[in-house]
Formats: sequence, C-alpha cells, structure tokens
Amino acid sequence: MIVTLLTDFGTADYFAGALKGAVLAANPRAQVIDITHEIPPHDTEAGAFTLLAAFESFPAGTVHVAVVDPGVGSARRAVAVSTPSHTFVGPDNGIFGYVYERVPSFNVFQLTNESYFRKEVSATFHGRDIFAPVAGALSRGVPVADFGPEITDFVRLPFAAPVREADGTLSGSIIHIDRFGNCITNIRPRDFSEDSFKRGARIRVGEREVKCFRRFFADEPGASAEPFAIWGSAGLLELAVFRDSAARVFGARRGRRVLISEATGARE
Amino acid sequence: MIVTLLTDFGTADYFAGALKGAVLAANPRAQVIDITHEIPPHDTEAGAFTLLAAFESFPAGTVHVAVVDPGVGSARRAVAVSTPSHTFVGPDNGIFGYVYERVPSFNVFQLTNESYFRKEVSATFHGRDIFAPVAGALSRGVPVADFGPEITDFVRLPFAAPVREADGTLSGSIIHIDRFGNCITNIRPRDFSEDSFKRGARIRVGEREVKCFRRFFADEPGASAEPFAIWGSAGLLELAVFRDSAARVFGARRGRRVLISEATGARE
Amino acid sequence: MIVTLLTDFGTADYFAGALKGAVLAANPRAQVIDITHEIPPHDTEAGAFTLLAAFESFPAGTVHVAVVDPGVGSARRAVAVSTPSHTFVGPDNGIFGYVYERVPSFNVFQLTNESYFRKEVSATFHGRDIFAPVAGALSRGVPVADFGPEITDFVRLPFAAPVREADGTLSGSIIHIDRFGNCITNIRPRDFSEDSFKRGARIRVGEREVKCFRRFFADEPGASAEPFAIWGSAGLLELAVFRDSAARVFGARRGRRVLISEATGARE
Repeated sequence: MIVTLLTDFGTADYFAGALKGAVLAANPRAQVIDITHEIPPHDTEAGAFTLLAAFESFPAGTVHVAVVDPGVGSARRAVAVSTPSHTFVGPDNGIFGYVYERVPSFNVFQLTNESYFRKEVSATFHGRDIFAPVAGALSRGVPVADFGPEITDFVRLPFAAPVREADGTLSGSIIHIDRFGNCITNIRPRDFSEDSFKRGARIRVGEREVKCFRRFFADEPGASAEPFAIWGSAGLLELAVFRDSAARVFGARRGRRVLISEATGARE
Repeated sequence: MIVTLLTDFGTADYFAGALKGAVLAANPRAQVIDITHEIPPHDTEAGAFTLLAAFESFPAGTVHVAVVDPGVGSARRAVAVSTPSHTFVGPDNGIFGYVYERVPSFNVFQLTNESYFRKEVSATFHGRDIFAPVAGALSRGVPVADFGPEITDFVRLPFAAPVREADGTLSGSIIHIDRFGNCITNIRPRDFSEDSFKRGARIRVGEREVKCFRRFFADEPGASAEPFAIWGSAGLLELAVFRDSAARVFGARRGRRVLISEATGARE
Repeated sequence: MIVTLLTDFGTADYFAGALKGAVLAANPRAQVIDITHEIPPHDTEAGAFTLLAAFESFPAGTVHVAVVDPGVGSARRAVAVSTPSHTFVGPDNGIFGYVYERVPSFNVFQLTNESYFRKEVSATFHGRDIFAPVAGALSRGVPVADFGPEITDFVRLPFAAPVREADGTLSGSIIHIDRFGNCITNIRPRDFSEDSFKRGARIRVGEREVKCFRRFFADEPGASAEPFAIWGSAGLLELAVFRDSAARVFGARRGRRVLISEATGARE
C-alpha cells in the first residue's frame, strides 16, 4: 500500500500535489511517499540512478511512480514493470534502465487499459492522468496484467551495465556525479572484487589511475588528495577524493568510461 | 482522513513540521500530504491558484489546509469552507477565492470555537495553533458547524471569474504565470468553446492577438513562435508560445486582461 | 506509529527517499513525516534547534529521527532517547541537546544491538542503515532498552540552557537566527518573566540594550526600529526589530551572549 514518487516536477508548483491526489483518489488508503521531485528537468538518466539508489530500501510490495518524461504527449509508451518485490510505473524512456539490471527478473507491461486512467487525459500531465491512477490501482491489488499487454522491446539505458572486453578489461561508466563530486559507476560487487585490486588490478579514468581502495570515507592518518575507489551506499563502485571533487580531479562527466584492467598476478 | 497542506513556509524551517505535528496531534490517523510549502511569501493569489489546480485531484472527504497569511495577528478571520466533496481551512483573505468559483456550492464558517485551538494561540503561527488543529478535528469527523457561525461576507478574489461585457466580449484575466512563462487565465470551458474560435472568435492580450488554438503542447509540423491558446492541465485556458515564454512575448503580468471577442459568424 | 525525519540530506538526492524506505521496511504501517531535510549541512546546532521547535507539536508516541551527522563513520555513538511522550533516534553529537533541556525526564540508550540494523551497514549512511531501521522498530513497539545499554555520558550542547550568575544576571545565548534575522535565545518562560521586565530588568546584547517587550509582531501605532523582545512561537525569548533584521542591528551571530540584569526594584 506504499506508493513512492520520483519526478522532475519541483515542489513549488501544483504538479507534485496533483500527482499525490491522483494516487489517493485511486486508493485512499495508499501511503504516498516522496522520494524526490528535484530530478533535473528532463534528465531521465539522473532519475534512473536516483530510483535505483532508493528503491531497494522500501519493503516488498511497494509501488514506485517515476515521472521524468520529456516525451510526454509524443508516441512514447506508458509502462508498468513488475519485479518479484516491487512494481514500477512510468514512461518507457529508460527511466527503469538501471532497475532492469538490478532485479533478478522482471516483466514490462504497456499501459493501454484506459478504464484505469483519468476520465480526461491531458496532453501534458500523464503523471496525474495515467501513472498516478495506475499506481493507485496497483497498490490496491489490481494485477499488473490488467493494465495492458506485456512488451519486450522496452527502452533500456546505454550505460546500464559494464561490459567485459576481449582482453579481460572491464569497461564501465560513470552514471552519476553526486553533489560532492563523487563519481558513481555502474560497476557492481559481482563485476569486481577488492581482492583483484590487491592482486594488481587497476582502475583508469582517461589518463588518471586510481591506485587506492578504501573501505571508509572518514578521515584516516595519511588521507591525501589521491583519488580512491570505494563501495558507495548505492551498492556501486564510487570514485572519490578526500575532501575534494573526484569529478573535478578526473575532469569527468556522466558517461565517461571507467576501465578496470585484469590483475596480472605479477604482485602475487 | 487525508489532510493536505499548502503554505508559504518553505521547508527549511520548523514551520511545516510543526504544522504537520499539530494536524496529527488532533488526529493521529490523518494522512498528511504536502501540496507545497513554496508559495511565494505572502502571495495569496499564487496560493489560491495552486490550491485550485491541485485540490480536485484528491478524493472526496479530503481536508485542505491553506496558509498564506500576511495578515496573521491582525483582525482577519479564520474560516473553514465546506463544499460537497472537500473541506478547506485557512485565513479569510481570498486564498479560497478560486475554489468559490469552481465548486458547485459551498458554505463558509468562521472559526471561533477556541476549544479546538491549541491551548496557547501565538500571535504569529495560526497555522499550527488554529488551522492545523481544526483540520485534524475535521478529518476525524467533527461537523464543520461546530467550529463557529456561518458567514456570508467572506473575502473573494477580484479576478476569480471572467465577466461578459455588454458587447458580448468575454473579459478574463491572467491569474498565474508558470515557470515556463505560460499564462494561465481564469477562463473556463463553460466560458468559451474551441468551436467559437473556429467561427472567428479571437483572443487579445493588449495589442497582441492569439490566432491559434492547439490541443497539444508537443512539437508539430510548422510549430512556430506564434502564441497559441490551449486548455491547460489546471482546466483553464492557457496562453503559450512554443519553446518560449508567453509572458515575455505578451509583456504580461498576473492580472493582465484577456479579451475574447464574440465570433462574428463571418467565416461560417 | 508516526516517525518524523529531520536531516541535512536535502531533497534532490536519493538519501531522504532511502531513509523513508528503511523506516517503512522495518514498519510498513509507520506514517513517515518530513520535518525538514534542509538543515545546513553538518550544522548540528541548527538541527537541534529545529527539532526542539517542531517536536512538541506531535502527538505522544511519535518517534523522531534526527540525522545531522558530520561524524558518521567515526567513533561517535548512535543513540535512542526515551522521554515520557516521544522517542528520538540519531547520533550522539548534541543534536538532542535542546530536547534534554526541554523534556521533564529522559533516558539515553546506545544503539549496539545489530540485529535491528541493516544487514550491511555502510560507512557513510547510518541514517538508512542504523537510525531508520531502529526508528521503524521503535514505532512498532520494540522497547527502547532492547537496542543497547543506557548511557549517562551522552553529548550535551554548550549553550543548551542559560545560567544564573552570582550577581543575579541571567546569561543566555542566541541559539538560532531565523530567515528574517530574528534572534531566538535559549531563555525560557521559567527563566524570565515579562513582569520582571516591567519592574526594570533589561536585556543586553553586547553594547545594545533591549528596552521594549511586545506581545505581537503585528504592526502597532508607534512601531519603530527599536529592538524588542517577544515570546516566539518556539516557546523561547526572541529578539526582533520591526521589519528589519535583529541579527543585523545587533551584529549578532549564533552563540552570542544575551544578558538579563535583575530588576533593581527602583521602579517599583
């Protein structure tokens, strides 16, 4: 009965309020929870990352509405994504791209059953008119298949997962830069182990090499301006610099490649 | 049992938090929902518009608290407004002016029954001390007439509704300019039909004429810098310019008159 | 079953959302309420003041999570504070310092029982991994003593309470400056009465003397630029200037001493 909201609507206008009302009109017993309404306008990838980093904290059964929707009013599809523990509702534009990589399995359904929509669907506010009413209905137990047909050609994100190149190098990407300049990559614990780092594996971002792996951000004897890697709180490899911006040190932007060479074994 | 909040308190201070606490102290089972706390300080008309645009999304039975209250501590009255489907609580300063025009019927009650107020009512924080406790009590089922006498000389907004002039011209106003520069008017579907536009009716803002009516904001073949009219998601006529600010193009501010000439029938 | 949140996380990132999820994962029936996420980063004293000013509005049984935690990852302790009507969860860094002065009695427990924590506790996000799960468990009725041992050497705030000097002068401090420049002191109704002011007591901030005591902020005949004292909505003595910033007039910062001389009786 929990319905979360993640949008780029801001909180100054009536949009977030109307969205909440529309969820509650479909299920007055839903508990509506703001994740954020401050995704940079139309930045689908930022929304996708924030959703990834937040959704797993919620209990099983939660319905997540994500509306960062530059294509509203165009032909982009509306979808619901069913996973073993959560359900997601939003536009089919990549906003669930990281979720697809994280969850063990999922099914995507196109929202076509207009009986669950607002009576009059506006051209500009599908959050209120489609996504919120569908989320409300899902939260009161309507089966996801009632909303429309399953589809398989849904939109994925280009940098959702790292790839292993022929020479064994792991090629990942920076998918988010937080407000401290920490660079969050798409590299997961199953892609790379701290042990391989100890055996000589190295992380490179352009010309720069990351030679240090830390377990904590906190101050240490000898903490220096040397960039380091760390498993961040989003469950992904982060690149950071103590009390500085790693993004600035690396001259890095989102989408920048992060390469991890295989351990040569030379140091063992 | 849903209680919404709309204020100009911002979210950085303790004010919004204390308001929520006071609702919950009066009804711990209320579901408290933020519409916004970012109304520009003391801008009653902006609050009135945002409330109008958001409240109808909520289910019947919702109690809406609206506190944009430059006159707190003065002699302005506190009121509850009962309508067939929602109830409103706040200062009697025009903040419910658009609601009065929208709902089919309503009654306004002055809040005088101090037994529902906080024990000590401060001079500066009636949101916490009067409006929130009353809203909590309303949400648990206390009849609105218990809070004080009905009044009829409540405060309306000057531009709440358009007027029909003697020559048939509809004289409306811009009541809100959103962050994209779209100009939302007080003109409703019952005041004006797209058909009359096709029959030759024209919209004027000062020297500028709006010659085009669109159904969608989205890009179209031939989309140009020409201003157009559209039924916006707040259910009101909006004036917009594709990828530009209509407010800038028109040199318009809130309160600016919008005139719609009668169709002459010449084109039919 | 109400759990409030007060942090310096901001609302743009995933942090506040993940915190809410973690509360709800521990108690899906909790009602999660934002007090604010806009405490200035790492400003424990600002968080402590905002918590003080907001918490008493909430009903008995509310659990308050407060996370302004510059020492996360260091040896600072995690605590739960039990009072007769509310429970508090957060770092032991002074954030509950004003609560300790306000409530009639309290007990502080160190959070050591890891069975209530997230399976993997990150080094940087104890809000999600420790405080939120503990708050969720408290809100579903787990006794506070289950989380760890009681401690007595918890961290207090240096300026939490005013002191009475040998000559009878009351020595308080400015503990908060609000966005209007009003200076909120740590002086409570039990420290000082308006009557003693009438009998000749005077308030001094540096070289400036406050000669006037008002009951209302609102405009009065003769309202002038003269600083005045007032009992503010946080239940504390505030120093203000009509339509001006008292902080600017006094050149005052947080921590500045506010002295109240004893009434000499001369005027009686």
